[in-house]
Amino acid sequence: MMEKAAKPATLRGVQGTIAISEIFGPTVQGEGAVIGKPTVFVRTGGCDYRCSWCDSKFAVLPEFRSTWRRMPPEEVFAEVKKLSPRPIMVTLSGGNPALQPLGELIRLGKAKGYCFAIETQGTVARDWFCELDHLTLSPKPPSSGMETNWEKLSRCVEFSGPETETIMKVVIFNEWDYAYAREVDHRFPSVPMYLQVGNDRPPGPEPADKTEPRIGELLERYEWLAGKVVADRWNEATVLPQLHVLVWGNKRGV
Amino acid sequence: MMEKAAKPATLRGVQGTIAISEIFGPTVQGEGAVIGKPTVFVRTGGCDYRCSWCDSKFAVLPEFRSTWRRMPPEEVFAEVKKLSPRPIMVTLSGGNPALQPLGELIRLGKAKGYCFAIETQGTVARDWFCELDHLTLSPKPPSSGMETNWEKLSRCVEFSGPETETIMKVVIFNEWDYAYAREVDHRFPSVPMYLQVGNDRPPGPEPADKTEPRIGELLERYEWLAGKVVADRWNEATVLPQLHVLVWGNKRGV
Repeated sequence: MMEKAAKPATLRGVQGTIAISEIFGPTVQGEGAVIGKPTVFVRTGGCDYRCSWCDSKFAVLPEFRSTWRRMPPEEVFAEVKKLSPRPIMVTLSGGNPALQPLGELIRLGKAKGYCFAIETQGTVARDWFCELDHLTLSPKPPSSGMETNWEKLSRCVEFSGPETETIMKVVIFNEWDYAYAREVDHRFPSVPMYLQVGNDRPPGPEPADKTEPRIGELLERYEWLAGKVVADRWNEATVLPQLHVLVWGNKRGV
Repeated sequence: MMEKAAKPATLRGVQGTIAISEIFGPTVQGEGAVIGKPTVFVRTGGCDYRCSWCDSKFAVLPEFRSTWRRMPPEEVFAEVKKLSPRPIMVTLSGGNPALQPLGELIRLGKAKGYCFAIETQGTVARDWFCELDHLTLSPKPPSSGMETNWEKLSRCVEFSGPETETIMKVVIFNEWDYAYAREVDHRFPSVPMYLQVGNDRPPGPEPADKTEPRIGELLERYEWLAGKVVADRWNEATVLPQLHVLVWGNKRGV
């Protein structure tokens, strides 16, 4: 089912606006199927999850709501174009970007040659998923403290379009997370699985926070995870680090 | 043009055998379009290039020829199967693997569900390129000391098949290498470009060599390269590190 035609901005009101935490870039995507690709990030505010190791609490916790802006899609796209006048991949992240009405932003951008990727936990399926170029579903493993609703996740997969590259991305901190990723893979055998080393020293929500990851430890955990995948002959999986964390640590806006 | 049907091993003689430097894995691919994927490496011996910063001199220089084995394709595939009884991606590397008769090995493996990737500089086009799943052409930039034959490189692109994912991968050490990568991209606009940070402390050819890369410097060079790509609005490029060098340094067999 497609969304209805866009209404004029004056009639759309707060329903049609997008809660924006930050828009930044261009930088390179540090994760997943399009790792290393130049991108502009559109980070929305608000989330239905509270992951213990969340690295974007400023876009999740209600006490930061005053830092979010309610913007119509035209205004969001104008900022994206200002950051990258040439068409580029736009990454919709959060928070949970699927809580926001992003269909019109995607259509505005695609009409100008931009392509779109989203990163969402897979709790809310949207009809505009089928217009995305890349749909990354990252259901959260046990270490997050969250529980997976498999039906909702399944619905998200079904909503992707024939041109949408859909993948699962599971962040791994320990053996239980790894077992969970195997379960996701058994439930969705046709969706490519990306395993990602978790950052156990995520930034605090305040800009003044000085927590930094330990690169040596992250690389050792990559070695551990790659070793497990290879030992289990899980030959279809892809194992990746968070490249941006290796290069820029917990710095924001890169 | 397809190769002729395989002759019995006794008639094939040295012409049908493959010069093998090493077969190892499974490990994860550290570079390019399939970064992070489990793979078994088949490294052939012999090369038509002498890159100044070559990281596999033991598979290139004639003085190491005595360490290479001449193996029939059946024997190579038997070793691959021993290392990974489950189908896996096999990466053909070198030296220059395009110097070897690899068509039969590829057909043997594909019949059993294995898939094949090659890494070659693009100086020799082979009819069996069209049977590959991944063709990585890595023409060498000025810092290598080598010169590119554009016609030969173009022929390699033409030899890829409709199912072959073909990419260009250029290793970057400096501004001139970067300018060279732009030229490759202008000549082959329809082939995706992967830029890779070069390792300026490659291992020496002897196993006893203790040279190790400096991880901090490699990450800084990644930041420099990503910054250039973004500043130049080269939004179609992909910028990657050598993941295996970050994780395992110059260690062989991983």
